[in-house]
Amino acid sequence: MTYQLNSDFKMFALNANRKLATEMADLLGCQLGKCSVAKFSDGEIQIHIEESVRGNEVFVVQSTSYPVNESILELLIMIDALKRASVGKINVVIPYYGYGRQDRKARSREPITAKLVANLLEAAGAHRVLSMDLHTPAIQGFFEIPVEHLIGVPILAQYFMDKKLDDVVVVAPHSGSIGRARKVANLLNAPLALIDKRNDEETTNVLGVVEGKNAIIIDDLIDTGGTITLAARALAKNGAKAVYAGCTHPVFTGDAVYKIESSPIKEVVVTNTIEQPTEKSSMKVTTISVAPLLVEAIDRIHNEKAVSPLFE
Amino acid sequence: MTYQLNSDFKMFALNANRKLATEMADLLGCQLGKCSVAKFSDGEIQIHIEESVRGNEVFVVQSTSYPVNESILELLIMIDALKRASVGKINVVIPYYGYGRQDRKARSREPITAKLVANLLEAAGAHRVLSMDLHTPAIQGFFEIPVEHLIGVPILAQYFMDKKLDDVVVVAPHSGSIGRARKVANLLNAPLALIDKRNDEETTNVLGVVEGKNAIIIDDLIDTGGTITLAARALAKNGAKAVYAGCTHPVFTGDAVYKIESSPIKEVVVTNTIEQPTEKSSMKVTTISVAPLLVEAIDRIHNEKAVSPLFE
Amino acid sequence: MTYQLNSDFKMFALNANRKLATEMADLLGCQLGKCSVAKFSDGEIQIHIEESVRGNEVFVVQSTSYPVNESILELLIMIDALKRASVGKINVVIPYYGYGRQDRKARSREPITAKLVANLLEAAGAHRVLSMDLHTPAIQGFFEIPVEHLIGVPILAQYFMDKKLDDVVVVAPHSGSIGRARKVANLLNAPLALIDKRNDEETTNVLGVVEGKNAIIIDDLIDTGGTITLAARALAKNGAKAVYAGCTHPVFTGDAVYKIESSPIKEVVVTNTIEQPTEKSSMKVTTISVAPLLVEAIDRIHNEKAVSPLFE
Amino acid sequence: MTYQLNSDFKMFALNANRKLATEMADLLGCQLGKCSVAKFSDGEIQIHIEESVRGNEVFVVQSTSYPVNESILELLIMIDALKRASVGKINVVIPYYGYGRQDRKARSREPITAKLVANLLEAAGAHRVLSMDLHTPAIQGFFEIPVEHLIGVPILAQYFMDKKLDDVVVVAPHSGSIGRARKVANLLNAPLALIDKRNDEETTNVLGVVEGKNAIIIDDLIDTGGTITLAARALAKNGAKAVYAGCTHPVFTGDAVYKIESSPIKEVVVTNTIEQPTEKSSMKVTTISVAPLLVEAIDRIHNEKAVSPLFE
Amino acid sequence: MTYQLNSDFKMFALNANRKLATEMADLLGCQLGKCSVAKFSDGEIQIHIEESVRGNEVFVVQSTSYPVNESILELLIMIDALKRASVGKINVVIPYYGYGRQDRKARSREPITAKLVANLLEAAGAHRVLSMDLHTPAIQGFFEIPVEHLIGVPILAQYFMDKKLDDVVVVAPHSGSIGRARKVANLLNAPLALIDKRNDEETTNVLGVVEGKNAIIIDDLIDTGGTITLAARALAKNGAKAVYAGCTHPVFTGDAVYKIESSPIKEVVVTNTIEQPTEKSSMKVTTISVAPLLVEAIDRIHNEKAVSPLFE
Amino acid sequence: MTYQLNSDFKMFALNANRKLATEMADLLGCQLGKCSVAKFSDGEIQIHIEESVRGNEVFVVQSTSYPVNESILELLIMIDALKRASVGKINVVIPYYGYGRQDRKARSREPITAKLVANLLEAAGAHRVLSMDLHTPAIQGFFEIPVEHLIGVPILAQYFMDKKLDDVVVVAPHSGSIGRARKVANLLNAPLALIDKRNDEETTNVLGVVEGKNAIIIDDLIDTGGTITLAARALAKNGAKAVYAGCTHPVFTGDAVYKIESSPIKEVVVTNTIEQPTEKSSMKVTTISVAPLLVEAIDRIHNEKAVSPLFE
Repeated sequence: MTYQLNSDFKMFALNANRKLATEMADLLGCQLGKCSVAKFSDGEIQIHIEESVRGNEVFVVQSTSYPVNESILELLIMIDALKRASVGKINVVIPYYGYGRQDRKARSREPITAKLVANLLEAAGAHRVLSMDLHTPAIQGFFEIPVEHLIGVPILAQYFMDKKLDDVVVVAPHSGSIGRARKVANLLNAPLALIDKRNDEETTNVLGVVEGKNAIIIDDLIDTGGTITLAARALAKNGAKAVYAGCTHPVFTGDAVYKIESSPIKEVVVTNTIEQPTEKSSMKVTTISVAPLLVEAIDRIHNEKAVSPLFE
Repeated sequence: MTYQLNSDFKMFALNANRKLATEMADLLGCQLGKCSVAKFSDGEIQIHIEESVRGNEVFVVQSTSYPVNESILELLIMIDALKRASVGKINVVIPYYGYGRQDRKARSREPITAKLVANLLEAAGAHRVLSMDLHTPAIQGFFEIPVEHLIGVPILAQYFMDKKLDDVVVVAPHSGSIGRARKVANLLNAPLALIDKRNDEETTNVLGVVEGKNAIIIDDLIDTGGTITLAARALAKNGAKAVYAGCTHPVFTGDAVYKIESSPIKEVVVTNTIEQPTEKSSMKVTTISVAPLLVEAIDRIHNEKAVSPLFE
Repeated sequence: MTYQLNSDFKMFALNANRKLATEMADLLGCQLGKCSVAKFSDGEIQIHIEESVRGNEVFVVQSTSYPVNESILELLIMIDALKRASVGKINVVIPYYGYGRQDRKARSREPITAKLVANLLEAAGAHRVLSMDLHTPAIQGFFEIPVEHLIGVPILAQYFMDKKLDDVVVVAPHSGSIGRARKVANLLNAPLALIDKRNDEETTNVLGVVEGKNAIIIDDLIDTGGTITLAARALAKNGAKAVYAGCTHPVFTGDAVYKIESSPIKEVVVTNTIEQPTEKSSMKVTTISVAPLLVEAIDRIHNEKAVSPLFE
Repeated sequence: MTYQLNSDFKMFALNANRKLATEMADLLGCQLGKCSVAKFSDGEIQIHIEESVRGNEVFVVQSTSYPVNESILELLIMIDALKRASVGKINVVIPYYGYGRQDRKARSREPITAKLVANLLEAAGAHRVLSMDLHTPAIQGFFEIPVEHLIGVPILAQYFMDKKLDDVVVVAPHSGSIGRARKVANLLNAPLALIDKRNDEETTNVLGVVEGKNAIIIDDLIDTGGTITLAARALAKNGAKAVYAGCTHPVFTGDAVYKIESSPIKEVVVTNTIEQPTEKSSMKVTTISVAPLLVEAIDRIHNEKAVSPLFE
Repeated sequence: MTYQLNSDFKMFALNANRKLATEMADLLGCQLGKCSVAKFSDGEIQIHIEESVRGNEVFVVQSTSYPVNESILELLIMIDALKRASVGKINVVIPYYGYGRQDRKARSREPITAKLVANLLEAAGAHRVLSMDLHTPAIQGFFEIPVEHLIGVPILAQYFMDKKLDDVVVVAPHSGSIGRARKVANLLNAPLALIDKRNDEETTNVLGVVEGKNAIIIDDLIDTGGTITLAARALAKNGAKAVYAGCTHPVFTGDAVYKIESSPIKEVVVTNTIEQPTEKSSMKVTTISVAPLLVEAIDRIHNEKAVSPLFE
Repeated sequence: MTYQLNSDFKMFALNANRKLATEMADLLGCQLGKCSVAKFSDGEIQIHIEESVRGNEVFVVQSTSYPVNESILELLIMIDALKRASVGKINVVIPYYGYGRQDRKARSREPITAKLVANLLEAAGAHRVLSMDLHTPAIQGFFEIPVEHLIGVPILAQYFMDKKLDDVVVVAPHSGSIGRARKVANLLNAPLALIDKRNDEETTNVLGVVEGKNAIIIDDLIDTGGTITLAARALAKNGAKAVYAGCTHPVFTGDAVYKIESSPIKEVVVTNTIEQPTEKSSMKVTTISVAPLLVEAIDRIHNEKAVSPLFE
């Protein structure tokens, strides 16, 4: 597939996803824009865009992933620099949108940080957001600017279809992921099960039939690995033949990879929305690149073609 | 319970919840503010506030329920009138927040109307929102102004606790209501079940055990009554002893009440966030008033005491 | 006349002026954009734009006429959908701008709803307004975005010139319409008269000479028909040879058409800025289409030519 | 009448209305706040507020009258200084709102300067406007902040009632002043007449009966004196017994006073919203102070009492 | 040098820099746009743009120099007119940015007028600012819109290089100008000296060696001429061989030119960012035109080429 | 000194200055508000305010110092939480304002991060800023909200006055600090010297007389220690008797403390606006607490008394 980019097209990578951005540039057949993103000795971020962006349509690739606060500030400062450099359009590509779980006040006097970050991006001067598998779809509504919201479900579903597993059950590891699990189950034409936890947090119940089946756990992200491995154990205990998992964002904090390796899970499929250090690699973890999907979306945005075919 | 209101307190009712507002005023021991809300012959709304509100802390009670567009415009026009009349604070009490289900782009080129309404309220000049059981909690984040978000779960749970039903299972009639159902189940110390529908929309599956149990369906609202009666039938078919339902907002459109009456549901518990015409009353429908809860919240807001005790 | 539209041009009609919009599309030689504008059973408006609008210059045709609050909400929701769909420019064509008479606080604690509606349109995301015969020209200043303000006076004046009436007097039926009447009188080279009402609202006085003349009443709109038929009777009583009327916007509420038919008025000329149901047609009412004027303006906006020749 | 001012009350005068502001302070029983308003040698305005205003409710008195651009900048700079000094509320008292006649685009590519000034006041940080006889009442709608709009009609009408003239006719000297003239006529229980000018600007017509009557011309302002003296001459020619005039704002540019003196007008009544140099005084001109009215309004605003009794 | 301008290019001059703007138009090979900028008799500015600007990229040339408040209002009103005329981009060319010295609160309760003016320009609707030698570079940060900040140092330095003076010392006449002086010294490869004044304002000290040298005083502007002539006298007293001065903006208020003429300064080099009346010309004052620099910047902005080569 | 705080007063500390905030609370005689500021395992900040703040006037103490990006995000998230918790006023106390040196575009396509941070604070919802020795005073103008700008010069000057050094010269270590140095020199009644560096960055020149004197270097901050120790060496080489330094903000990155220890500087006086780890303590470094000054300012803000006596 070759892409046609106009002369006003520029893509920049900040520090969170350099590998993904490079892969995207290769697919697009362009160079990443020149831009130094350094730190002063006191920790202040110093950005200098080293080529003209005047009137350009710019895409900045930056997941707001670990180190999340650095990543956010880098992105905001880059937007400010672009704004003041008379750029045409500032498209912010955020493969993984951090702070997505702080999307409401769960208790009194809590922030809604997912909304705050949206406000900050708009205050800095962003014109459009391209993101993927937001923790809650309503986060789209936190923005006044257009949000192109790509979804990972078809990618994950396709991967498992290609495996040709028989007798599949799709499992939501907690109630918040049931919407995603339902969509995967539809694509795989499989039944659904749900891991239910009471608020005493000890009893773990499996709703639905998993005995003798290939169980595929579906979630948007894996953080500490606790939820998914707890679910896996419950599934094994309830007689599942094998346990797989498919999650878009590999946050992988602490000993998440170790937990996965020592769990009954046979294989975890994730994407590269968050760059992983090599020490977090594992034989059990398969990574699918979202670069082709992001690049296709960027091409459609840039050439003003409908993005909808990518997710409908 | 008696309330202490400062001299700058005023409460106004628009046309959507006059009965509820009157009940609230009675509980607070105050009069509703004088305000004519009429229509010109061409359908344009005419509002005239008939007493001074200068510097006052005003509460306007208006669900954005049927006729929803009229209700929204009434509320926006009232806010404009208050703003221009040098009011102190404009608190908007919206027991039922309409358009709540349009909280994300489900498909390309759809609006996010729940966010639009938030924008309109802020553009008109509202300072604070007091609402109840928003369809998605993330709607709180659609606002820059503070949102006091009351929840109906404890009220509904208490009602069923008082009934002293044995062998209860709490049922989420679709995946979107599983969070609410889980909370009620926790309060009733009961297990959970889920009605699962494939996207071919024909097969209805019950996940979890309901046989021989008193099933209580929990949802935030009843609109056409389709979802809840379908769930009830599935529960009956799967051997539930009896079927109850508890839903905060009785939207009750079309023949919803008729559908309930001709279903296996024994009793539906709702609140009065939406005013019902007498022809929609039914022996099967029990209505609990939210006036005490709203009044308690208003008192706490007005006297700057924490609202959190109401929902924590 | 043929028009040249660029490939990024799209025109959509909502529910208030489908006939006018269709006529406009025919004149422009284009199709109306595909867009479903439906209602859920609970009265909530559901809009889905069914073709890509990415980067397009869009014109949305919608008078904020009866049912005015529905019409406004439809328009706002459409704008939100367009904004989130990465449209290029949102031009709002409002042939009749409702709530125009609420353009100031006539009494304390009234809203200025004409301004509120302007705020709502801008909050939703409109980029330009094209309207006609605003009740007060200062409503242009309620907007920060450009307002193209077309005027109906030349159309109405031309119609009466073509009738070749002799001995004409142009009549303002109340003091608010004297500016418009003066302009028509200038074009017809005729004297002016004014219907003057004291605030006891009973005595109706004619200032100026009408005896033996063809009187043409000029106003921006006819609502209940009261003002215009009262004026007609006063003119007849003061010896006018015949009474005509020319008004841009046929609001026609209640029995307005009946009042006209049973009045001394010989003919009322209006435009189609507001769509009339067939039961409101009358032999006495002549309707001139504003489609050619609107289409000419849209072409000039779209092709960045001066709009001024249309009204100077 | 004595007024009760809280300790947080401060009133400042800039350079346009020092005499009026001093009179107002006397009536209120307070001192004007200390504030130097000087100019650097290059014409830049230098403002220094010389007493603390932290948390105060401040009223700044400044007509945007001649030299109008200096007056506007003085006011904006004062507002900026107050905003940055942590003031509580900034109330802007503008007895005469300049640029009021630029309230719409009369032709293509004109500004709407009356709206621009409103935007500037809000951008600088004003919280409320107190003004009088705005050229168009719709200018209230140019603001998002509350506008207290006082009217001079009762003052002028009272003055003429006290004169006990018999056989009065109230005259609008052009169509734009007919609303004001009608209100005065109502109060004086008198008939109305209108001076009508065709657009060739030469023929001046009197609509209504003035012969043998005491004609009182009513307008919001007198600028060059052209309109009013032309009207006076037409009235005299049509047999008026005597000609009076009542206009709120004495803009009095060029030889306006001389024109009045050499016209058939017997007496012109104006107010002191605009300060006049002594060389512009005239035996024919009577000035009524608006200080009592403004002071009454300020007291009501400051003590949060309804302002409506002042104009209803 | 010839410039390529697109058909959407328009340049307008207001009253502050007509000569400079005309020179710029000549260099660009274009006509200045037709626009009447007049005053009504009461001092209100009346602007009418006399040719279509729809969709155009417009540059408005106006220093906010004497009469500064008139100049600012003219500019704001012009921006409002352009905005409402559906212009494409409004570029504001402000060769001299007035009120630049009020860039911070030097004392409590002072305004920051340089920021206020930035706010006013943005509130009116400006999209970009092109200015030169802002008093403080941080004024760039007072704007959200892009600021192209040209610098006069290279022009002044080049002039003195061409003079081939030997044994040069560059002198900062006060601590605020040391940054500029340092840059000129670098270009001339010369040492630096500083005139230091204690706050008793009487003792004037020269830091650095000036004896027997050609001293060049560098500052951003000359206002009353006091600072520069005081510095010159101190330099002469300390044995400077000759004293020159180079300052971008000739504010020249009061008897500034006389002061220069009667001082030991041999030659003052300024630019034409501020238009001078002929009576302020002097044999000692050399004026360099900034038209070539401004025109080069405008061309780069208009054709979306980097502006950076002009100052790096 | 005892302070009177109203019942609506609350002060919170985030993680950057806990020691200073505790000292401030002790001086004020209040408790710090309860608030957990933790981090999730993925680095996302989690804030929960643990007591009601409804209607309160809150002060949040947080320097935006190392780790600067964490500190900024913590502060923004706290502001969001407060805003949504219906707080009365949010006062942000930022003893050291990080990113202050990025206060202008030094080169093309750089951000103005000091302005961006101001925008972020306002977007989050801050109402007032209390800061100290901003790198450029014009940063005050980056804000629309009031900025109380305290200065450290009197504290540092007092310290050196108390030392009773004879024959003092105050030294600006680079041209940017000359304003501060001049103010200290005025207070100490001492002459000034300046360290001048050419842009080849190698030659270091001393302007002014330092031989045989006690030189006191004055700057706003010490970062790597490079500038100050270079200056010290130049002063020693030019015969200074002893070298002291006084700088408000001890940024102290890298081996700054080591550099100071191995330099000719005898003593460095700093304040505690930035908390230092014990391993950065040094016999040469004296720290003065700014808690009394901040507390005095907070008291004056809280009780609406003039803050100006603190710095005039």
